[in-house]
Amino acid sequence: MTVRKAPTDPRSKSGTLSLRRVAIDTYRENVAYMHRQCENYRAEGFQALAKVEITANGKRILAVLNVVDDVALVAPGELGLSEEAISTLGLEDGAAVSVCHAEPPASMDAVRRKIEGERLTADDLMAIARDIAERRYAKMEIAAFLVASGQTGLDRDEVMNLTRAMVAQGERLHWPGDLVADKHCIGGLPGNRTSMLVVPIVAAHGMLIPKTSSRAITSPSGTADTMEVLAHVELSPEHLSEVVSRERGALIWGGTANLAPVDDILISVERPLGVDYPGQMVASILSKKMAAGSTHLIIDIPVGPTAKVRHMRDALALRKLFEYVADRLGLFLQVIITDGRQPVGQGIGPVLEARDVMRVLQNESEAPVDLRQKALRLAGRVIEFDPDVRGGDGFDIARDILDSGRAHDKMQQIIAAQGQQKERFVPGSLVLEVPAPTSGTVIGIDNYQMARIARLAGAPMDKGAGVDLLKKLGEQVKQGEPLYRIHATFAADFGFAKAQVESDSGYRVGRSDQVPAVFAEF
Amino acid sequence: MTVRKAPTDPRSKSGTLSLRRVAIDTYRENVAYMHRQCENYRAEGFQALAKVEITANGKRILAVLNVVDDVALVAPGELGLSEEAISTLGLEDGAAVSVCHAEPPASMDAVRRKIEGERLTADDLMAIARDIAERRYAKMEIAAFLVASGQTGLDRDEVMNLTRAMVAQGERLHWPGDLVADKHCIGGLPGNRTSMLVVPIVAAHGMLIPKTSSRAITSPSGTADTMEVLAHVELSPEHLSEVVSRERGALIWGGTANLAPVDDILISVERPLGVDYPGQMVASILSKKMAAGSTHLIIDIPVGPTAKVRHMRDALALRKLFEYVADRLGLFLQVIITDGRQPVGQGIGPVLEARDVMRVLQNESEAPVDLRQKALRLAGRVIEFDPDVRGGDGFDIARDILDSGRAHDKMQQIIAAQGQQKERFVPGSLVLEVPAPTSGTVIGIDNYQMARIARLAGAPMDKGAGVDLLKKLGEQVKQGEPLYRIHATFAADFGFAKAQVESDSGYRVGRSDQVPAVFAEF
Repeated sequence: MTVRKAPTDPRSKSGTLSLRRVAIDTYRENVAYMHRQCENYRAEGFQALAKVEITANGKRILAVLNVVDDVALVAPGELGLSEEAISTLGLEDGAAVSVCHAEPPASMDAVRRKIEGERLTADDLMAIARDIAERRYAKMEIAAFLVASGQTGLDRDEVMNLTRAMVAQGERLHWPGDLVADKHCIGGLPGNRTSMLVVPIVAAHGMLIPKTSSRAITSPSGTADTMEVLAHVELSPEHLSEVVSRERGALIWGGTANLAPVDDILISVERPLGVDYPGQMVASILSKKMAAGSTHLIIDIPVGPTAKVRHMRDALALRKLFEYVADRLGLFLQVIITDGRQPVGQGIGPVLEARDVMRVLQNESEAPVDLRQKALRLAGRVIEFDPDVRGGDGFDIARDILDSGRAHDKMQQIIAAQGQQKERFVPGSLVLEVPAPTSGTVIGIDNYQMARIARLAGAPMDKGAGVDLLKKLGEQVKQGEPLYRIHATFAADFGFAKAQVESDSGYRVGRSDQVPAVFAEF
Repeated sequence: MTVRKAPTDPRSKSGTLSLRRVAIDTYRENVAYMHRQCENYRAEGFQALAKVEITANGKRILAVLNVVDDVALVAPGELGLSEEAISTLGLEDGAAVSVCHAEPPASMDAVRRKIEGERLTADDLMAIARDIAERRYAKMEIAAFLVASGQTGLDRDEVMNLTRAMVAQGERLHWPGDLVADKHCIGGLPGNRTSMLVVPIVAAHGMLIPKTSSRAITSPSGTADTMEVLAHVELSPEHLSEVVSRERGALIWGGTANLAPVDDILISVERPLGVDYPGQMVASILSKKMAAGSTHLIIDIPVGPTAKVRHMRDALALRKLFEYVADRLGLFLQVIITDGRQPVGQGIGPVLEARDVMRVLQNESEAPVDLRQKALRLAGRVIEFDPDVRGGDGFDIARDILDSGRAHDKMQQIIAAQGQQKERFVPGSLVLEVPAPTSGTVIGIDNYQMARIARLAGAPMDKGAGVDLLKKLGEQVKQGEPLYRIHATFAADFGFAKAQVESDSGYRVGRSDQVPAVFAEF
């Protein structure tokens, strides 16, 4: 058998193909479908998975080529593209398009230099961010960039330039006034829903705090997921701006606004790879915050044996990096290192967390003390961004706002302004109480394992699913007394969560002198 | 708008889907197609591009999920898979399969440790190779492994262990006797078809040399492409073993034999990323050669300003690495560093290279001297692996075999045994002669540029396409005298090649004292 080019009419080589819609969703990667018998496919010597450039209508997009043997999908002479890709080109079914081999993005040269250990310039990073935003990078090329910059590390100027480049690629929100407050936790602690307390407290104080949050990516709930138990979180730009001008605060999902889109694309590769580097984290967080229009930002870095940051020295290095980049980009930023030894509050999962938040706002006796204290301290620091507030007075102001019910009232107004949630969500009705194996003191609660159990129980898709912690670090338990309660709605989820608990409950019970010391106090 | 889980029957969660063939070729990556309205899709909270595990029939495969909106492709309740994936599972259309989220491959932990700069153990590398061979790695994960091991570098024991791991994953060819000779060039020089001379010379001497070669990946022709001008190169295992037992030598394409398949998968990521590291190169070449059953190997490293290796110090470092790994894996290996300043021989492209080879074998006066000399020296070194040959006598033995016509006779026998090519290929009839811009001496021929021109002219798919060099380094030329000739079959190809020549002819003409010195002589 010989493999050779068929004697085709040479003109077909530069010929055009007829566009056809293919109803396959390939997420952030364009895919083009071409029939194996297509003259273009054979003449150009395309290979399956090759990157091709499609031009028409003065526009061009890049796509990965898939080869099709079924004329029901695409016929020879046709080029299949997804709905999204077709609309990017501004075309209709049947339009004529040209296809050729895509050149690799020019900025890959800079990535290869980074692999060799070189330092990248501001222009290099700007070109990389632009090519990523224009979808010119395949996932493997993004992986190469991430690993190369994670391994030799990005120095602090590179992190600053990467942040700037990421901000430059998307939309930016603009707010009236020159003090737009924000807070952000680097993540890793289940139940850590302080934003839903800080926003109403700070807004009640009169400062602007239009908070955009993410949905859960790998955690059992993001702030947007939990807020959605109470109110709508997907707001149009006009609606958001109306809410903020009336209430000074909002708690919405940031996904609709195309803020620092490069960040989302990088995260979509970091997550499956399981890599997470300080330089990337700082650029990711600060680019998103700058794009959201924030001017004054509190960063919360929890430290603990099962937190993202496990040693004080790493937290301090991360703090310096945040400070360096923020100072040079004109962002007022303060870093607070917090206790990350265990989940915050009692509930893990949207409904259970929303319940905790409302208990704190209503000053109920069952309100989790740690969530209240942490939120007050963070809110206090945000309030001290107010030039009229004396340094050190923020905590007391925040506590007054909370204790007086003004924070609760503000939260009700924000909920009403965003649109109250019609559906009433309740904790899942399938319940398992996990008992203490022996009597003693709770000496360890594994953040990762509790998050995993809550996710398996169905959170965040099933809003009522999750874990309710009945005992926290340092508390005494008797053998057989429940440590926590699992809620699920569906039997299959319930079974997955139970199986996970059987392999590892996430709790350790021991002697009172074995409780780990607090790594940080603030 | 709220996003939440629909209250589905919990039993559908662990339910099965009905398999359906989807005629889309996704090359080395399995893709699964699921309808957006499928209960499983919604219940499991799958995301487009998530990795899923498909189990049925006691087997399991991994696939990337694509979401479909068209019931003509797959309906809710169905799972679409490619022909290849279905046959891997050993199933038919309509069979019941289960789908769940795939765990990332366990060996990614080792990749993450490599990213942190750690040294990998033999077990780590064995696990990585196994997971790659089983298609458990996504391309981005492979990119992470390649970049991580390129950047901190693999030390020589890691290269050895990677080589061993790559050999362990595929088939191995076995040959009678304990001297199976081979030669391999690390690549980068167009026209370098010495294997087609070394094999008949060495086989005529009576040594076993069953040479498996690749087709061109980025070059204008691989040895298999050029040999195919004369004979069939895709042989069944039985046919190959018949040829070798009768003729002692063969020149076939190695792609059918599943030798070191991890190497092919790594190359499919290295190539589009444009990365090529010494450690990976050594593991790639030696694993392929060991899997092909070679015991005695000559490695050719050309050095020159436009060769893969550009400095003598790099060539020496690469030589030591080849020697270290080969010695520990029980492979007799000798490295020869050769002159890589310019293409070898006159023709570039399958037909033109085959013509050069036959001219050398037939001792014609137009036979390219450099190709003949290089082939004789390499063949001589291979012949010296024969314990009965005195060190230093190999070259003379090789020359006697060539000059006496015995090499030509052996080549004819090998061609007849493999099956003579029925089709008679000729140089492309569209011809362009590229003239010297000034009178002077040829002082530079760019290997990359000549390869690019030959590829654009249509090589290797169009066997008659390519470039015929009329002047080589150091030769005098008059202004307007042709430097080389382009052959093409199709007008479009011809146009592409012409445009490329206009931007850069690849030749430099200057003063005779500007001819670069030979970096290496052997």
